Amino acid sequence: MNITLTLRILGALLIFLAGALLLPIPFSLFYGDGAAMAFIFSALISLVVGGGLFTGCISSKEMSVREGFAVVTFGWTFFALFGALPFVISGAIPSYLDAFFETMSGFTTTGSTILTNIEAMPASLLLWRSMTQWFGGMGIIVLSLAILPMLGVGGMQLFKAEVPGPTADRLKPRIQDTAKLLWGVYALLTIAEIILLMAGNMGFFDALNHAFTTMATGGFSTRNASIAAYNSAYIDWVITLFMFLAGVNFSLHYLGLRGRFMDYLRNEEFRFYLVLVVAGIALIAIFNAGGSYPTFWENLRYSAFQMVSIITTTGFGTADYELWPVLCQYLLVIAMFVGGCAGSTGGGIKVARLLLLAKHAQTQLFRLIHPRAVRLVKLGDRPVDKEVMQSILGFFALYMAVFVIASFIMAGTGMDLVSAGGAVVATLSNIGPGVGSVGPADNFAHVPALGKVTLSLCMLLGRLELFTVLVLVFPTFWHK
Amino acid sequence: MNITLTLRILGALLIFLAGALLLPIPFSLFYGDGAAMAFIFSALISLVVGGGLFTGCISSKEMSVREGFAVVTFGWTFFALFGALPFVISGAIPSYLDAFFETMSGFTTTGSTILTNIEAMPASLLLWRSMTQWFGGMGIIVLSLAILPMLGVGGMQLFKAEVPGPTADRLKPRIQDTAKLLWGVYALLTIAEIILLMAGNMGFFDALNHAFTTMATGGFSTRNASIAAYNSAYIDWVITLFMFLAGVNFSLHYLGLRGRFMDYLRNEEFRFYLVLVVAGIALIAIFNAGGSYPTFWENLRYSAFQMVSIITTTGFGTADYELWPVLCQYLLVIAMFVGGCAGSTGGGIKVARLLLLAKHAQTQLFRLIHPRAVRLVKLGDRPVDKEVMQSILGFFALYMAVFVIASFIMAGTGMDLVSAGGAVVATLSNIGPGVGSVGPADNFAHVPALGKVTLSLCMLLGRLELFTVLVLVFPTFWHK
Repeated sequence: MNITLTLRILGALLIFLAGALLLPIPFSLFYGDGAAMAFIFSALISLVVGGGLFTGCISSKEMSVREGFAVVTFGWTFFALFGALPFVISGAIPSYLDAFFETMSGFTTTGSTILTNIEAMPASLLLWRSMTQWFGGMGIIVLSLAILPMLGVGGMQLFKAEVPGPTADRLKPRIQDTAKLLWGVYALLTIAEIILLMAGNMGFFDALNHAFTTMATGGFSTRNASIAAYNSAYIDWVITLFMFLAGVNFSLHYLGLRGRFMDYLRNEEFRFYLVLVVAGIALIAIFNAGGSYPTFWENLRYSAFQMVSIITTTGFGTADYELWPVLCQYLLVIAMFVGGCAGSTGGGIKVARLLLLAKHAQTQLFRLIHPRAVRLVKLGDRPVDKEVMQSILGFFALYMAVFVIASFIMAGTGMDLVSAGGAVVATLSNIGPGVGSVGPADNFAHVPALGKVTLSLCMLLGRLELFTVLVLVFPTFWHK
Repeated sequence: MNITLTLRILGALLIFLAGALLLPIPFSLFYGDGAAMAFIFSALISLVVGGGLFTGCISSKEMSVREGFAVVTFGWTFFALFGALPFVISGAIPSYLDAFFETMSGFTTTGSTILTNIEAMPASLLLWRSMTQWFGGMGIIVLSLAILPMLGVGGMQLFKAEVPGPTADRLKPRIQDTAKLLWGVYALLTIAEIILLMAGNMGFFDALNHAFTTMATGGFSTRNASIAAYNSAYIDWVITLFMFLAGVNFSLHYLGLRGRFMDYLRNEEFRFYLVLVVAGIALIAIFNAGGSYPTFWENLRYSAFQMVSIITTTGFGTADYELWPVLCQYLLVIAMFVGGCAGSTGGGIKVARLLLLAKHAQTQLFRLIHPRAVRLVKLGDRPVDKEVMQSILGFFALYMAVFVIASFIMAGTGMDLVSAGGAVVATLSNIGPGVGSVGPADNFAHVPALGKVTLSLCMLLGRLELFTVLVLVFPTFWHK
């Protein structure tokens, strides 16, 4: 492990963050919200620390796999640590821990919030909050489609092979091309959503914020009531559509934008995702029928929005699902464990892992009946390497271990069992709102300090596919 | 799949059941509880049906793997169907569905009950109820140590190799020797517990019943208040000890009784089980300290009893753990997923599977740091075959799928989410009491018919390691 090289790259990332911290300043001046100086100070601190690390740590070595893990984990952590500064310096979020929680929730595209009155925040800080999610989403797309497959994390190498998109084979030259192409797609979809939201009479500022946080499947809103504040069927459907799109592998969107629409349906993970979403919406609407909503379309609108919001791990809300029939709640709890497709901005376990798990179980049963038959698990037309299945088993084991330990700590802070488990799933799967005392009508402000630290770590672990963070725990990782 | 041969073997099993149904008759006559005729009729029905199948279905074929699956699954089902007869014929349990639920809960050593006033039952029927668990335990020991490893189910083939006990290589001759030796151990431990319980002033009848249901990790009691009715520290500790022993691989007891005590500690699964139990008791006692119990020893007694009862999936109670601090409850909920060692009468996921899962996760992380290093998952000194890990992954996938679907059905019957999930875990892991409306102070009488059928199926699925039952769903299983 080359610490000098790692610190140098982290320095470069902080310099990039310093640049990003300047972006909300025009908005601050336009709205006269008085937060401009906070951004300037924050950018300066990031620039000084980042510049110091970048120029002070000179290393001629090439980057290897180990530095890759360290840069990803500490990069995200540094972004949350320094990205929290404007909230604290401006005084909008007085506690640094709260600001760190909020910023980690942003960069990991989780969407859990400690804010009790969002609308009282200065506009430029709300924009920064949405931008942390948008940048987090950019990071995740490249991470999951280019970097993690190379590091061999959690079966992600599979998804590189599966989608014939602009994926990278070697670190240096191709990764930059890949990133540019995917970010182009990401930006294009964001712009499309801004325009469609403004066409529904949402103001530019709100449209910008919500497009940022939709495409990142983040779920931060500028309104206390989230998307329910607009009370518009049109806006609900636009956001439902874009949440769905954000949960799709961005390599497929890249192909789609080049006119290869059939590639969506040729992709087995996408088909399974589509089936899960449609079946989920249908079931929720059926169990909601005759209940809270007067018409078929109202029911469909609210059922679809909540289902897509949870399954893609976005976390926007237009209804308090804790008031829905128990079967609807159950379906949403299950959806929390699904998440988006691999290579999307969605969190969770990922559709592809669940699909492979289902196929694996079927194959196991088949082999008991036909012990001499050869039957491999396939995705699309390709047989899945056994190493990939081993990685997925490891992923599940770690997911459960983290869930058990983190829930225990949360219960130790005085939370009831259901809320404790719900808070961990909501952060570990990067959803945002959980159940019980951290449900869609609540927030995370009341969680004690130990709980906020634990949940912040859960966000990081979940976002970086667990392995990336947990390898750092091994003492041998740090050996020269 | 040879249906004739399968029916013939099922017939033989029913003839055996008819014999077992005669055993409670002396007790019925001694207590004058009027149930003797019910047993005679039930035995006759079993004998006629069993004899008819046995003599009517003649097959010269040898038994193969497929018939093995069918005999195990339908054998357990037939035992529950016909073992329920005395309850119905005597009128003690008027509903046949309720009697079926209770008997399935017996033969699967689960211990969930629909009885609301146990002490009002005729003595001989209570004894039959306890005997169903004891026979179920006998079945499980042979099933898990001799039959399932041969069928290749869920990684169980591993445990055959791990313990150098009296395990079988071929079906016919060795399986009978194995069974006799293990049943000898089982009977010896049962007799020891009867004597020790009677030494604590428990009457012979109660001692007999509780020894039957302890050794089976079943948990049926003759008292409404379960073991709390005796209010004796001595009895609590004796039962705690025997529950612990019943959760150990019976091959180890076989070796232990031959004086090879060090073989316990040489066995890695046993060591892990010991650590889990001791750590679990210590943690519960710590979080219970200063709470419900006045002295250290009282606290330890109740904490140990509840922890061992849940982790071994016995389900006896001496305290209502739903009144304990939330962290204690959390630990018990986690313990529900553990279960005993492989080759014990305990249910659940099994200590060995969790141990291998933890090792596998560690190996996965290690390999990310050292991609070229060769490191195999080992149990004891032996490397674990990849096929075994694949089986375990399949087991987890099926466990989760069954849990999700069954919980959904239970929620559909009107249960709240926590009780629905708790009822499924309690039956799928063969524990007995769950949480919420089916907690330790409640029973399953109020569960609607659909729920009772679902939970009965969960007991069967969990007891037979999922695969054994689920292979029957494949249409190709039934082809000639």
